Amino acid sequence: MKYVGDKAQDINIAYIGGGSRGWAWGLMSDLADEANLSGNVRLYDLNFEAAYNNEVIGNSLLDRDDVKGKWKYKAVKTIQEALEGADFVVVSILPGSFKLMESDVHTPEKYGIYQAVGDTVGPGGLVRALRTIPIYVDIAENIKKYCPKAWVINYTNPMTLCTRTLYEVFPDIRAFGCCHEVFSTQMLLSDVLSELKGIKDVPREEIKVNVMGINHFTWLDRASYRGTDLFPLYREFIEKHFEEGYYDSRQKIRDPEHALYFGCSNRVKFDLFRRYGLIAAAGDRHLAEFMPPWYLKDPETVKSWKFGLTPVTYRLKQLEQRLDKSRKLVSGEEKVELNKTGEEGVHQIKALLGLGDLVTNVNLPNKGQLEGFPTGAVVETNALFSGNGIQPVLAGKMPNDVQNLVMRHVLNQETILKAALNKDKKLAFKAFVNDPLVNIHVDDAQKLFDEMLYNTKEFLPGWGL
Amino acid sequence: MKYVGDKAQDINIAYIGGGSRGWAWGLMSDLADEANLSGNVRLYDLNFEAAYNNEVIGNSLLDRDDVKGKWKYKAVKTIQEALEGADFVVVSILPGSFKLMESDVHTPEKYGIYQAVGDTVGPGGLVRALRTIPIYVDIAENIKKYCPKAWVINYTNPMTLCTRTLYEVFPDIRAFGCCHEVFSTQMLLSDVLSELKGIKDVPREEIKVNVMGINHFTWLDRASYRGTDLFPLYREFIEKHFEEGYYDSRQKIRDPEHALYFGCSNRVKFDLFRRYGLIAAAGDRHLAEFMPPWYLKDPETVKSWKFGLTPVTYRLKQLEQRLDKSRKLVSGEEKVELNKTGEEGVHQIKALLGLGDLVTNVNLPNKGQLEGFPTGAVVETNALFSGNGIQPVLAGKMPNDVQNLVMRHVLNQETILKAALNKDKKLAFKAFVNDPLVNIHVDDAQKLFDEMLYNTKEFLPGWGL
Amino acid sequence: MKYVGDKAQDINIAYIGGGSRGWAWGLMSDLADEANLSGNVRLYDLNFEAAYNNEVIGNSLLDRDDVKGKWKYKAVKTIQEALEGADFVVVSILPGSFKLMESDVHTPEKYGIYQAVGDTVGPGGLVRALRTIPIYVDIAENIKKYCPKAWVINYTNPMTLCTRTLYEVFPDIRAFGCCHEVFSTQMLLSDVLSELKGIKDVPREEIKVNVMGINHFTWLDRASYRGTDLFPLYREFIEKHFEEGYYDSRQKIRDPEHALYFGCSNRVKFDLFRRYGLIAAAGDRHLAEFMPPWYLKDPETVKSWKFGLTPVTYRLKQLEQRLDKSRKLVSGEEKVELNKTGEEGVHQIKALLGLGDLVTNVNLPNKGQLEGFPTGAVVETNALFSGNGIQPVLAGKMPNDVQNLVMRHVLNQETILKAALNKDKKLAFKAFVNDPLVNIHVDDAQKLFDEMLYNTKEFLPGWGL
Amino acid sequence: MKYVGDKAQDINIAYIGGGSRGWAWGLMSDLADEANLSGNVRLYDLNFEAAYNNEVIGNSLLDRDDVKGKWKYKAVKTIQEALEGADFVVVSILPGSFKLMESDVHTPEKYGIYQAVGDTVGPGGLVRALRTIPIYVDIAENIKKYCPKAWVINYTNPMTLCTRTLYEVFPDIRAFGCCHEVFSTQMLLSDVLSELKGIKDVPREEIKVNVMGINHFTWLDRASYRGTDLFPLYREFIEKHFEEGYYDSRQKIRDPEHALYFGCSNRVKFDLFRRYGLIAAAGDRHLAEFMPPWYLKDPETVKSWKFGLTPVTYRLKQLEQRLDKSRKLVSGEEKVELNKTGEEGVHQIKALLGLGDLVTNVNLPNKGQLEGFPTGAVVETNALFSGNGIQPVLAGKMPNDVQNLVMRHVLNQETILKAALNKDKKLAFKAFVNDPLVNIHVDDAQKLFDEMLYNTKEFLPGWGL
Repeated sequence: MKYVGDKAQDINIAYIGGGSRGWAWGLMSDLADEANLSGNVRLYDLNFEAAYNNEVIGNSLLDRDDVKGKWKYKAVKTIQEALEGADFVVVSILPGSFKLMESDVHTPEKYGIYQAVGDTVGPGGLVRALRTIPIYVDIAENIKKYCPKAWVINYTNPMTLCTRTLYEVFPDIRAFGCCHEVFSTQMLLSDVLSELKGIKDVPREEIKVNVMGINHFTWLDRASYRGTDLFPLYREFIEKHFEEGYYDSRQKIRDPEHALYFGCSNRVKFDLFRRYGLIAAAGDRHLAEFMPPWYLKDPETVKSWKFGLTPVTYRLKQLEQRLDKSRKLVSGEEKVELNKTGEEGVHQIKALLGLGDLVTNVNLPNKGQLEGFPTGAVVETNALFSGNGIQPVLAGKMPNDVQNLVMRHVLNQETILKAALNKDKKLAFKAFVNDPLVNIHVDDAQKLFDEMLYNTKEFLPGWGL
Repeated sequence: MKYVGDKAQDINIAYIGGGSRGWAWGLMSDLADEANLSGNVRLYDLNFEAAYNNEVIGNSLLDRDDVKGKWKYKAVKTIQEALEGADFVVVSILPGSFKLMESDVHTPEKYGIYQAVGDTVGPGGLVRALRTIPIYVDIAENIKKYCPKAWVINYTNPMTLCTRTLYEVFPDIRAFGCCHEVFSTQMLLSDVLSELKGIKDVPREEIKVNVMGINHFTWLDRASYRGTDLFPLYREFIEKHFEEGYYDSRQKIRDPEHALYFGCSNRVKFDLFRRYGLIAAAGDRHLAEFMPPWYLKDPETVKSWKFGLTPVTYRLKQLEQRLDKSRKLVSGEEKVELNKTGEEGVHQIKALLGLGDLVTNVNLPNKGQLEGFPTGAVVETNALFSGNGIQPVLAGKMPNDVQNLVMRHVLNQETILKAALNKDKKLAFKAFVNDPLVNIHVDDAQKLFDEMLYNTKEFLPGWGL
Repeated sequence: MKYVGDKAQDINIAYIGGGSRGWAWGLMSDLADEANLSGNVRLYDLNFEAAYNNEVIGNSLLDRDDVKGKWKYKAVKTIQEALEGADFVVVSILPGSFKLMESDVHTPEKYGIYQAVGDTVGPGGLVRALRTIPIYVDIAENIKKYCPKAWVINYTNPMTLCTRTLYEVFPDIRAFGCCHEVFSTQMLLSDVLSELKGIKDVPREEIKVNVMGINHFTWLDRASYRGTDLFPLYREFIEKHFEEGYYDSRQKIRDPEHALYFGCSNRVKFDLFRRYGLIAAAGDRHLAEFMPPWYLKDPETVKSWKFGLTPVTYRLKQLEQRLDKSRKLVSGEEKVELNKTGEEGVHQIKALLGLGDLVTNVNLPNKGQLEGFPTGAVVETNALFSGNGIQPVLAGKMPNDVQNLVMRHVLNQETILKAALNKDKKLAFKAFVNDPLVNIHVDDAQKLFDEMLYNTKEFLPGWGL
Repeated sequence: MKYVGDKAQDINIAYIGGGSRGWAWGLMSDLADEANLSGNVRLYDLNFEAAYNNEVIGNSLLDRDDVKGKWKYKAVKTIQEALEGADFVVVSILPGSFKLMESDVHTPEKYGIYQAVGDTVGPGGLVRALRTIPIYVDIAENIKKYCPKAWVINYTNPMTLCTRTLYEVFPDIRAFGCCHEVFSTQMLLSDVLSELKGIKDVPREEIKVNVMGINHFTWLDRASYRGTDLFPLYREFIEKHFEEGYYDSRQKIRDPEHALYFGCSNRVKFDLFRRYGLIAAAGDRHLAEFMPPWYLKDPETVKSWKFGLTPVTYRLKQLEQRLDKSRKLVSGEEKVELNKTGEEGVHQIKALLGLGDLVTNVNLPNKGQLEGFPTGAVVETNALFSGNGIQPVLAGKMPNDVQNLVMRHVLNQETILKAALNKDKKLAFKAFVNDPLVNIHVDDAQKLFDEMLYNTKEFLPGWGL
């Protein structure tokens, strides 16, 4: 890598999960839009062909006039080839298959447990974590071996436990986890300003928020725009929209099926604000999963709160569409559309290269940024990204009542990590039965747990399943 | 107070709740049995007549030959008279009445929530706390005013929140909370030694245990007798007795009705050990209330776990018997029986007077003795009592899975304290609905909470009930 | 105060010490240069005439075309008038007189103790603190009474103890302490880039530094420009300039007398880097005072390290010049020159008003931003200023050897605070004799201490002097 | 090992440094006096012959009627033989030789630095630590390999760094460091009681003290006997004895030469109490070394404070006497005298075997027992010894002024450890020059340091000396 003026060139990015049809194209768009960075992206995927397709697609951008940042893409067959010499590592994988995800999400329904996403907490999130952690152990060991100084950006869920595992295995790793859920809440607050104050089109970056919590269960105790405290406005907005819910304009343009399964009226978020006085800052589908089944009791309840349960069949259908699109992009039948994702990965890379500071929310081991939570547990707060690295900003302390909701998951996640590393089924069950969504009798919980574990057994060697 | 050789004389004890028919007589017995201490006990009670009866009863011991420690008892009409000049303050009161306790324990049954005791956690424990905290605010202020240097021994439940309130109001108070539940577990371990090793009659004090947790939800991670680790023996003992349960000899001599309502087969304790690997160190009736309704689902479930649900009607019946006994003791028809209670209050007093060190479990604000729990929250661990005061022993750190069970209650209790001090109904409900026993829908929980609060409204002035 | 677009209007600033000839004019310049802010500045000073002169001077700017930010200045006779309704409070006072400062700086010379500045640590800094703390107790109480929500910016030395006192008296105060010493080090690093890399005129704000320590004794463990680590360059620079020292261009334009007394060749800073491996980030005159008398042994030693000892006589001479200038400015004989000070006060105000984030170094109570130092002690690290307030950035942990140098002063300062609040001469002496500069025998130290305290006795009522 | 009633038999003790003429015989006496313990002691020493002599001497006790505890002694040639199967490991070695100690103690005198002992802090303590740490690295690794569950009792100085090294290398080690200095202070307080209150012969164990600090620099903030606070009595005692000093009866029976070199009038201790208000709890020879050279300025000053500087020549003379005695004991010309040492090693062993609790002062890594000091640094406080292991008692927090004195050494010791492990001469010097006794100019300090290091170079391979 070298610097020429305010440009950084010959940057090497390793992309683990580089065969993705979606995230990968998003990253291509974001990189294409940034004139000050250029270099190479090495794509590694268990499915080499998928990675190779992305190589073809990515390189199709090189000669286009509307592409400001020039990158060469190269599919590689081993993780070593991807990592050696890497300045940055992006990890975005599907741990297991959609078939396994189907078990994660839908098996609990037999016991009356509904999940909207099933990839973070709840029975599905836990089982997904158990099979993802060993994969991340492997990734961490490879990074330690091949590029210990590289910055590692994780996008995979369960975000907290993926990031946590990287640090457990290689404490000196320079990893962080990124998620856009907080951004949507900033956009919602921008809509609030627009509707109640007539201040239109405030970019989300200008909505200043103090972020505290864990991924997908973050809370804001302060939010402001210029001198304006947004809390009273948010309260007023909720009074207006609580019954009907509020759909932002970004949702309206989606097709109806997507809206049905991924929709979010913010009613859960509004209810949490009315109860707890803080702004929960993630989509309702995620938030509902961290609470007792107040919102996920059954499909009718879900309907009344107006958010979607995402069936895995729909994810499969989306995949088909993306596979089709991939074919067209590879063959040249279609051209890559440059749509910025709104993710901050490229901004973060730029900031870490010393090309402009950035303050944004990020998942990192707690070193005091979130008072009252265990040291080392991965938490989500704001942090300063600069040429000197990432430094969390002191977020302060939650009120005890909200801290209690979050702490339960934090300690559960620490338990899950330990269970996964030791292949300890009994310990894993202790976390399982302590999840708020698992409010069935302990004996039923045991049966469900056994079945779910059995379903994912190919990813749990050594567990005696 | 003065010292003569190894004797301390003219000690002044203030007894708040000194009209009690039970605890007061027990304290009399314990004081009577300790030859090295003597002085005055001032009895203060809202019911002066009851205190006066105890004055008569207590003073009847003065001339008896079998009484080694000589104390003069005096009922007083104001708390000021009790506290002025006190070296020690004993607080053991009934906050409210049995009628209110009836609401605490039985109202939740309408919603399928069963409680064995209802005075610590669960809906009953919470409501009891809300009405007890203001009483303790008042006691703390009086102690600060009249005897700020006195040692204050609390016996009232909810133990944690009573002790916590004293420190919140008067941070320099020298208060501690005492409970005998751990002692029973030591006795159980003594029985284990007897049955499996043939080592008979080991006094409970010689069973060394490391205590960690909160009152009525304490856990032992180490227990030994001489060089013997008691954990493998306890495991073996459980395998033998799990199905039938184990009743200690102390229970067998009780009458059947008492056994029915207060009985404890230790099956809950055994089940917790099998699941969590630590020894839960309180009676099953208490332990069951801290967990989700695994053991308290319904009366049938309770029956299968072989412990008693204590109906308040039975407590009323017991009270009648004690009132009758009080009459006989006052009239001289009956003589006070000197039965040592097995409590450690008198030993603690002696140790604090510098007459012999003592290590025992005690409830105190956390200053690091229980790693991983908030500073200032009241926790139960061992502590060293000596002429230099009380110094907690570092208990260490719980495994994350057990820590998670306990932390939920700790943070709930901090929330309850704040709600009680601020008369904040909404905040109190957040703790209520987060209690593991309250696993009903949030809307039902709200109805139950409102009803219970209404029932106790005379103790909640300023709450707008 | 109100917002109009990206402008904030009708801001009220209270200026304690508003009669200053120097700081006040600097603030006027900085405010004049910022188009987005406007409002009122109320000037309060023990010397009302001085404040009134500044009212005249400040208001002379109102109609000038080259003034972008319009402010009205008003001298007031009571602190209450200054504080009521204030959005911001600036505190910049001279605690005591130059005559007292003369005792602080020069009395120790009798015992062979030389000080370059004498206002922060060392015998002079300590005595100055003792007389300043009561003044700050008073300021804190007034702020609590009249404008508890205002942001309070302290510029007075001893910075640490002034800020610490404000928080001790009024824990909810929104105060912070500002100092430009780190900026000079950033400029020095900019010179390094220029000389060794040919990268000219990099603004100091683009030199990213991680700040850790206490005011005037801050250390950088990371410094970078774009992707370049500045540590190896700094080492190379030192090798080149160590013998001769390095004077930056800003010093060269000063008059020779000023250079003699305030000069800084950076040789102390270079020596500290060679010994400790971190960049000490304050002027040599300050740094030397925190260390044992390696650099301040005697005037010859000072000369060899090429920094100035500032005699108070010279300060008096400067004051005369400024008084003369004040007369000319008031009479209109001279016009106010608009020279930006390079301070960040106005940027910080703007950021706190939500008009643009700022990351800069600031003095605040430690809440975890500086690992290994006591909670509550005032430390200097970077912090994020935004519409949500000030949030320190986690600075990390110093190496033990540097931590030890800093900790000695931190604990001394905590001791000084306590001594000042309790008027405890014996306790103050314990801090005095533990100062690294006071490495004379304890009995001599006592004599010196007594003499210095006696000299400042009019500011120490109740000390029995 | 096995238990028979309240006796533990077949205990295996490994004695590293088992050739000692002094400590070893003391341990023999102490073991001989304890009827409830018996087993084997394996003696390992670099000097096998010395160990073998102790085998002969130790076994001579076996058949004596006045010996209650029966132990078999066996000299072994490898550390492995000593450690395998060990239940306890005693480590008491001379790191290096008296010749090296001569350099430690006397070389600094060239620069006017006097040391009374030179084995803990000061230039001598530091250099001794540098050569001892690698030896302890080796011991820790062997314990980890051969007896990881054994209890390890360290007696070697520098106590803090020896114990610290064991934990650094093998964090799960069950090691603790023992020192009798606090006991002498308890005896002094017993003398105070005798002289001022007429309460004679109170055993030191009954003087309750709260211990806080680091080895040889411990402080008591509370001391009591029965209900009596000993602080006012101590103050009165000091007023009486300050000028002349106070020699306890134990010193009076020593020969005059010993008194001259090891004597302690307690004047330093008294002076520290007058200045700091806490009781410093170690001999004056040790205490004086932790302070600036107030007491050790020159031999005349030492004389005025009435404590001894121990020349290494005298230690050599003592050694000669002990070698002579060893010959006589081996040959049978002399019989072992059973004099209990007053050490608590055997009591501690007994307590850890579950045969009776013990609360005493001990050196252990800080886990919160000493508030305000770094986690992991070795500190000295009271701890509870029982069958469940060693649990420190919460000692509380020192006043800031005393904390500052102690912290300087704690952070220095952490620096020394790191320097020794990394063979980092420059880092070691940073600790050296920061020692309070090294208050010479930094350039002179460098020369002294270089010379001392050179003298001990055979123990510092890899340092490039």
